[in-house]
Amino acid sequence: MDPIRHTATAYLINGVPTYLNSGEFHYFRVPKADWRRRMRLFKEAGGNVLATYVPWLLHEPEEGQFVWGETADHLDLDGFLQAALAEGLYVIARPGPYQYSELVYDGLPGWLCENYPALRAHNRQGKSFRTSSVSYVHPLFWEKVRRWFDRVCPILAKHTVTNGGPIAFTQIDNEMGGVHEWHGGLDYNAEAMGFGRPDGRFPRWLHARHREIAVLNAHYGTRYTSFAEVEPPPACGSGVTAIRRNQDYFHFYLGTIAEYARFLADQFRVHGIDTPIVHNSGNPGMNAYFLETAAELGETFVLGSDHYYNLGQNWSQNHPTPQYAAQSLISLEELRLMGFPPTVFELPGGSCSNWPPILPSDALACYLTNLAFGMRGHNYYIFTGGPNPPGAGTTSDLYDYDAGIGPAGEIRPLYAAQKEFGQILAAHPWLPTAFRQCDFRLALDLEYSRTDHYWPAGGDLNPSPKHAWDLLRVGPLTTALCAGLSPEMVRLDALPPPTEAMPLLVIAAASMAAGKQQALVQFLKAGGKALILPVLPWLDEALRPCTILADFLRAPPTVPVPKSYLRPTVGGVVNIRGEVTALWEKLPPGAEPGGVEEHSGRPIAWSLKTAGGGEVVMLSFKWVHSMREHERMLKALLMRLGCRPVIQGSNPNVWATLWTAGDKRLLFLLNLFTDRQETKVRLTLADGRTIPAGSHAVAPVTVSVVEIP
Amino acid sequence: MDPIRHTATAYLINGVPTYLNSGEFHYFRVPKADWRRRMRLFKEAGGNVLATYVPWLLHEPEEGQFVWGETADHLDLDGFLQAALAEGLYVIARPGPYQYSELVYDGLPGWLCENYPALRAHNRQGKSFRTSSVSYVHPLFWEKVRRWFDRVCPILAKHTVTNGGPIAFTQIDNEMGGVHEWHGGLDYNAEAMGFGRPDGRFPRWLHARHREIAVLNAHYGTRYTSFAEVEPPPACGSGVTAIRRNQDYFHFYLGTIAEYARFLADQFRVHGIDTPIVHNSGNPGMNAYFLETAAELGETFVLGSDHYYNLGQNWSQNHPTPQYAAQSLISLEELRLMGFPPTVFELPGGSCSNWPPILPSDALACYLTNLAFGMRGHNYYIFTGGPNPPGAGTTSDLYDYDAGIGPAGEIRPLYAAQKEFGQILAAHPWLPTAFRQCDFRLALDLEYSRTDHYWPAGGDLNPSPKHAWDLLRVGPLTTALCAGLSPEMVRLDALPPPTEAMPLLVIAAASMAAGKQQALVQFLKAGGKALILPVLPWLDEALRPCTILADFLRAPPTVPVPKSYLRPTVGGVVNIRGEVTALWEKLPPGAEPGGVEEHSGRPIAWSLKTAGGGEVVMLSFKWVHSMREHERMLKALLMRLGCRPVIQGSNPNVWATLWTAGDKRLLFLLNLFTDRQETKVRLTLADGRTIPAGSHAVAPVTVSVVEIP
Repeated sequence: MDPIRHTATAYLINGVPTYLNSGEFHYFRVPKADWRRRMRLFKEAGGNVLATYVPWLLHEPEEGQFVWGETADHLDLDGFLQAALAEGLYVIARPGPYQYSELVYDGLPGWLCENYPALRAHNRQGKSFRTSSVSYVHPLFWEKVRRWFDRVCPILAKHTVTNGGPIAFTQIDNEMGGVHEWHGGLDYNAEAMGFGRPDGRFPRWLHARHREIAVLNAHYGTRYTSFAEVEPPPACGSGVTAIRRNQDYFHFYLGTIAEYARFLADQFRVHGIDTPIVHNSGNPGMNAYFLETAAELGETFVLGSDHYYNLGQNWSQNHPTPQYAAQSLISLEELRLMGFPPTVFELPGGSCSNWPPILPSDALACYLTNLAFGMRGHNYYIFTGGPNPPGAGTTSDLYDYDAGIGPAGEIRPLYAAQKEFGQILAAHPWLPTAFRQCDFRLALDLEYSRTDHYWPAGGDLNPSPKHAWDLLRVGPLTTALCAGLSPEMVRLDALPPPTEAMPLLVIAAASMAAGKQQALVQFLKAGGKALILPVLPWLDEALRPCTILADFLRAPPTVPVPKSYLRPTVGGVVNIRGEVTALWEKLPPGAEPGGVEEHSGRPIAWSLKTAGGGEVVMLSFKWVHSMREHERMLKALLMRLGCRPVIQGSNPNVWATLWTAGDKRLLFLLNLFTDRQETKVRLTLADGRTIPAGSHAVAPVTVSVVEIP
Repeated sequence: MDPIRHTATAYLINGVPTYLNSGEFHYFRVPKADWRRRMRLFKEAGGNVLATYVPWLLHEPEEGQFVWGETADHLDLDGFLQAALAEGLYVIARPGPYQYSELVYDGLPGWLCENYPALRAHNRQGKSFRTSSVSYVHPLFWEKVRRWFDRVCPILAKHTVTNGGPIAFTQIDNEMGGVHEWHGGLDYNAEAMGFGRPDGRFPRWLHARHREIAVLNAHYGTRYTSFAEVEPPPACGSGVTAIRRNQDYFHFYLGTIAEYARFLADQFRVHGIDTPIVHNSGNPGMNAYFLETAAELGETFVLGSDHYYNLGQNWSQNHPTPQYAAQSLISLEELRLMGFPPTVFELPGGSCSNWPPILPSDALACYLTNLAFGMRGHNYYIFTGGPNPPGAGTTSDLYDYDAGIGPAGEIRPLYAAQKEFGQILAAHPWLPTAFRQCDFRLALDLEYSRTDHYWPAGGDLNPSPKHAWDLLRVGPLTTALCAGLSPEMVRLDALPPPTEAMPLLVIAAASMAAGKQQALVQFLKAGGKALILPVLPWLDEALRPCTILADFLRAPPTVPVPKSYLRPTVGGVVNIRGEVTALWEKLPPGAEPGGVEEHSGRPIAWSLKTAGGGEVVMLSFKWVHSMREHERMLKALLMRLGCRPVIQGSNPNVWATLWTAGDKRLLFLLNLFTDRQETKVRLTLADGRTIPAGSHAVAPVTVSVVEIP
């Protein structure tokens, strides 16, 4: 088999851009006698890759005692890899250390968690919060992991593609950070982090960051005499210095994840595993936690994300909703912008809960929603299950998962949905080289997405970066999708040059890195057009005063916004629902008015042509998308900046995306509501011609895939 | 028109049990020329009552300057009431003071909010948190309200049913507590609450509660020398004394709501309004906030609840889900148990957001879901809208609300759904006298539902009452509904005598009032059968040691539950998913084992026959419903205690309820998932016969109403 290569937008097999259609298939659960038959079923559904955990828990049941296929069929990793090869299926091997997978101790050996409490993660108070949440960089943990990898990695190395086997990718760990974040917060294990030791990880990190203790003290408002003395941030701080201390600690913590990833990857390499290394972010909100890890591992690394919509009754939705779709779009674009072919390494193939049920029609809508928004590969979690090995499961003794192929090998309706998805992929082999038609650019500040742990919502500095990050999704992005506008996301720290008819939308917060403000200025000087909301930043990434952007625009002062009922009118839309974030004392020199708060008569939006042919619309207003008026306002502002919408749909409840490659065109129509929706679509082509693209009735919770001649 | 009377289960018109089908209809928005036509449309849809706010904001635009129909058609309250009378429609008048209704200042006059900051509610720090959130019992507020009521009440009094008009009910305020809870927490306005004054409200309340300052000090762990000295609880306290102080303050606060309600009701009476007085709880979670208010106002009072499922994209669901249905069932049962005919005073008739859309099919499913679970009256919010009076609206200048009848009088698809609902009601006029077939009783501790403000989740005392309250819904109730079991709710503080074949399910927390523990003991002594989980309480309502229930059962000690992976087996179900809450050292004398944690071999469930012929199953286990195994476990335990399920359905995704009156039977089948569900139903009648009730295919997000011969 040929190694699977990848670019930033697609996987390549034998040099051909190919969709990665993977399914999770646990050799330790699926009865060995049925492996080959189920693999063939998977191929019939379009599958080309299998993924499996390799649970440490099962293969080292007592410390130092390793068991494999000789002991029991369900431990026959080697046999499984041979079977996959025989069926011509690639394999993603996931040897941990962590698995989760509804296994006891998250797949770690019980002896490790119970007998070595020193290696557990600690909370700020220095207490362990969970038996099976370890400190990723604890030396004792690494020692035990090394012994496990010394046994499992040689088996995997023997079966890599370059050695004639099926293993195309090897995964480090599982949803890194999750065992901390979801159960007790960050890890503050003093031994692992080296608190108080001059050569400790945290003091060394602080030294590299601040160089001089005086610089740190000025930054923190503290009086430490050495880096070794610096304690982790207290739990109850508030204000700028508290944010700075927690920001440092969080960045340090993400660095320890990168270090852990490097350690695991090195183990793979030492043992001769030469495949790309993959990892699955636990959910879209965690993608940017891996910026440091990606930098550390370089081109050999592929990050994907897990896109569940429901794993239990307390989830935000029972079925894929437009809210889920918006979240997925951001996630897939983030992955692309981080340099990875957008991959959903865990795409719902059932659920660990029987109820609420994962309905086959909902699952198909979920798959197509992700495809419509750029997914270039997926792994069904799970494709098929079976009995849990004795004592290993946490959700009963059977790992049914309501998967497409049942634990006894039975074919279920979900399998038909997966087969249908496979057929859609097969019918459009050009999709992995296609591009999505976009109408404007939406700037992502990836740092904004990772401020949860250090910048509390509702503080004095508003909008906080996290608020701006959420606003991007619930406000402009959702409004745009309802209005038929498709955004191409770009990174604020790597802005592409301006493109005609593609204005840039920027959501700013109180703070924005100096370099990013500078990049925006350059963008404008190069003739770029930008809509900026809801504020101009006044702080840099470390919360120091920084008004590069405001200064360039010669933005005048603002007056305090009364905490009362205001009447905003913007882009011709009167009394629009939302929150006025600033009242400008006057317009900047040369600016034109764009919106006003009617009671005070103060400007809340203005447009300004900048040096170099650029243009800015500044909008001091934020909103949660809820009204048709929001669509009208946003469309008016973007069109003023040159946007020429490609898709005109008649129904805001049907979201549309259009993919093209050469003369091929595929339109996705998403109806993620619970009754039939009708829409009439027209397309404006690159040459300016407008063509009808039909009237469509889209069934409830369905994505229609329409070929446009 | 005949006055509308009510019992605890139904409304009576001319002595006949009648469903209250009301629609919100704002004379200040709907153009006067179209009033009568739209009223007739409402009657065609089955309506018999109209509700309207009477906005203070509009009728007293400047302080002391009152305007009515002479000034403008949209102010013609009198004309509106005459029109309703002419059309034979009853009216619910809602003169505030608060309206909300997407009006600026929540419907209070701007001059009141802007010119009299002293009457605003305060947070713990003594600061106003919102211009239009007032302190309900502030003397200055009462003075202003009195002047408003002096003008509006005489108009309403003139039009009450007893005076030959249409007004059958008058509402005090709107969603009381909401302007505090949703915007800043409780109200700590020092002037209104009387902090520091011997004759102040809070000191007087404390005196009535504790009698002696020494008693209070012992309770709080403080050293006050007088009640006047007692400060409101600090924000950051924790532990038992913090819970007690916050508990007192919250109970005191609820008392001020009752006092405010009394003040408003007295104003109505003084002016001759003799109708029953109604109020709408802001959401199901707030129903029990009005126990004090109900006691204060007595039989003249009817509380209903507002049951929205979506008013914006951040809501938990876009359409009615099973989770919404479970919440609604609890709410309707709570209202019934508080003595009120279960009424949804705001039932979605559109939304203040255009998006996500309120689809007509979803709305109908919502109406039928509430009907299936006992709703005896509703008020569509809104039935029809129109232009907002100048400057009065917060969601644009048009109050469209996507209502069934549009602002220009146009008929929309939602109207057809409402008409269909009206036809179903008309076809079953016996429903208001029917009763729901139930299989077991579920005890509600209403105090548990109101502990959010004083007992923080995740503290040391677990399970907290709030945790137990949530557990009731997400665990046993949801499991029961999936298993085809229907609970009749009962109040733990007013337990009915035991009934054959109706075991009682009790969810207990760390604390349970001594009187409630005693009542459970009495219930068992009277031969009752009860399933109690997940703990036996060890504290009373004021967090003093209290083990009345455990002592009666002679419950042995428990051993600490290891924070590790356990293997619970209960009722024949092995390795069931959930959390073991206690490991018993041994069984109580005379008990039989009912479940075991397999690793330790310790009992986690036992059953015990008590003196007086009672029987208890104690289950030290809690779960979030997710597996078919949960259904099997719960059904086994309840059937062991004598439950004989009425409905056997083949599909856990279709929830069923059966209503009977004499020989009439109506079966509701709820499919609140997004694909068609099939179910085969059999019924076991009171005489023990089992009869088939058909195979049914229920469309997505639909409630089938099936007559059973």
